[in-house]
Amino acid sequence: MRIILCGFGVVAQSLAELFESRKDELYSKYGLKPRLLAVFDSKGSAVNPSGLNFKKLVEIKKEFGSVKNYSEKNNNMTGIEILKNIDADVLIETTASNYKDAEPGMTHITTAMKKGMHVISVNKGPLALAFPSLMELATYNQVMFKFSGTVGGGTPILDYAKNSLSGEKITSFAGILNGTTNYILSNMTTGLSFEEALKDAKDKGYVEADEALDLDGLDAAAKLVILANWIMGMKVTMPDILCTGIRKVTIKDIKKAEANNSVLKLIASCDKELTVSPKEISKNDPLGVNGTLNAIAFTSEHSGTQTIIGKGAGGTETASSILRDLLDIRQEIAKN
Amino acid sequence: MRIILCGFGVVAQSLAELFESRKDELYSKYGLKPRLLAVFDSKGSAVNPSGLNFKKLVEIKKEFGSVKNYSEKNNNMTGIEILKNIDADVLIETTASNYKDAEPGMTHITTAMKKGMHVISVNKGPLALAFPSLMELATYNQVMFKFSGTVGGGTPILDYAKNSLSGEKITSFAGILNGTTNYILSNMTTGLSFEEALKDAKDKGYVEADEALDLDGLDAAAKLVILANWIMGMKVTMPDILCTGIRKVTIKDIKKAEANNSVLKLIASCDKELTVSPKEISKNDPLGVNGTLNAIAFTSEHSGTQTIIGKGAGGTETASSILRDLLDIRQEIAKN
Repeated sequence: MRIILCGFGVVAQSLAELFESRKDELYSKYGLKPRLLAVFDSKGSAVNPSGLNFKKLVEIKKEFGSVKNYSEKNNNMTGIEILKNIDADVLIETTASNYKDAEPGMTHITTAMKKGMHVISVNKGPLALAFPSLMELATYNQVMFKFSGTVGGGTPILDYAKNSLSGEKITSFAGILNGTTNYILSNMTTGLSFEEALKDAKDKGYVEADEALDLDGLDAAAKLVILANWIMGMKVTMPDILCTGIRKVTIKDIKKAEANNSVLKLIASCDKELTVSPKEISKNDPLGVNGTLNAIAFTSEHSGTQTIIGKGAGGTETASSILRDLLDIRQEIAKN
Repeated sequence: MRIILCGFGVVAQSLAELFESRKDELYSKYGLKPRLLAVFDSKGSAVNPSGLNFKKLVEIKKEFGSVKNYSEKNNNMTGIEILKNIDADVLIETTASNYKDAEPGMTHITTAMKKGMHVISVNKGPLALAFPSLMELATYNQVMFKFSGTVGGGTPILDYAKNSLSGEKITSFAGILNGTTNYILSNMTTGLSFEEALKDAKDKGYVEADEALDLDGLDAAAKLVILANWIMGMKVTMPDILCTGIRKVTIKDIKKAEANNSVLKLIASCDKELTVSPKEISKNDPLGVNGTLNAIAFTSEHSGTQTIIGKGAGGTETASSILRDLLDIRQEIAKN
């Protein structure tokens, strides 16, 4: 399978490492032989039509901070140049999420789809701003569009709701979809102020470079958009979400929840409305998980309420979800 | 789809009600038209080659305590006679679980498979005592064998581990697989003795007619056998489980757990060994759910630990899992 990889941050590097360490198993068990034709980051590119060496790529990135130093040939190609000039089967889009114009991910994805490439995205920006039209574009170009890693990292939340509950109608859901804000709110229950808890989360590397993505609820809202479209069949984008972040949460709010035998969590919910806002969750509710965990509760017509809990982020975890998407695509292609 | 239904207890009645209430949707959305040729309970049978009326069946059962009164014709056929003489596509086995010889479910299932019928079982007995050989029999006779409802009731635990985590290796798992014992242990944290908590659970109708199935951990052990075979590829049966129930749990044990910031739960686990026994679970662990809830945590090689929580029983919930199995079979048949 010929692959172009956009972005080479933590998740993409973990993916390269998984490709390397699981090479034999992926081929013997699933018939998957990933051949990485090109990869690029913000500083440059690495290209080899016979396939790049996964191990060398990661080493070069760690040593020089860019894949540009992989080779002296074709090391200045932009993403668009690569996508326009190199034929591949699958684009894996891992550049950073951006909720203003979703670039550069949006252009990568649309360019690839128009060229007939299947797309796997862990970049939430394009989906948050244009889910309905991206699905249409994929259908029109008869390509598969997968994005398991956008919600829940390595925890297969989207697949669970879509496939394990097939034949069942999900009527509503609510969840903690952002681990960073959960970590901050959990820590505030020990008496830390918002600022102190935020500082601790930053020290641990949990906060996005643009902290607004976490603190103002944009990351959670983006995931809510994806869930609402994919699971509930809604045609919505970011502006449809009523979004309140956690910047104004005080120790007093935390204590008030405690007095109600509850915990305060940033909850993304889809019921009559699509909202992201701090809400009190009963301590007896499985949804009220602590630390950086994510959790989501699906309520269905006949099977009751079911909660899934897992790490919502992490390089290897998210990379493993990309791999699942790739295996799905491999299997679908094999059918035809 | 021609169906024979063994047993007509709570789950089977809920299934008949789902068939009735979702009739139009099942046909329009999935092309499924369930035609129930025969059903029997411990007192007698109802048979109609053109299909029994779902609503009438439930009404008759509620009024007379048996489906025998549905019609004066063929109302004394035994399960074996029905299975031998009536051709159907699918057997749905819902008679009570029995961990001594797994009868009468075992004979129902093997007879149906030998006749080339697909089988859906929510009866755990045959799987607990003979999972490996039943899978072989199904393969040999080229029939599908589904049992989603045996673990987790309406919560699709088996499907999640098998499908949503495909391409991932589950290395171990641990869970609360019996809601009744969880209810009793949860109630003991409020100061009730084991006997008091057991009485309350009985009053609420949560305890099996044979209380040993719950209290001695047999129900949890049966589910562990099914998970170990289906998810981990082990070839094990009930005697392979090291099983301790909750009869000896005292308030002192509950208080000791509390002092360790933990809760005492009956945990079924698959790690180096297959065990069912009371264990302390940290209050911060998502696994430590209360009431009648079930919970299971799967630890995988690359995607971390993921916990699924839901009601583990209930007529409609378990019936909805039978329906999912039936839709799977419908879909597989349509492919060929």
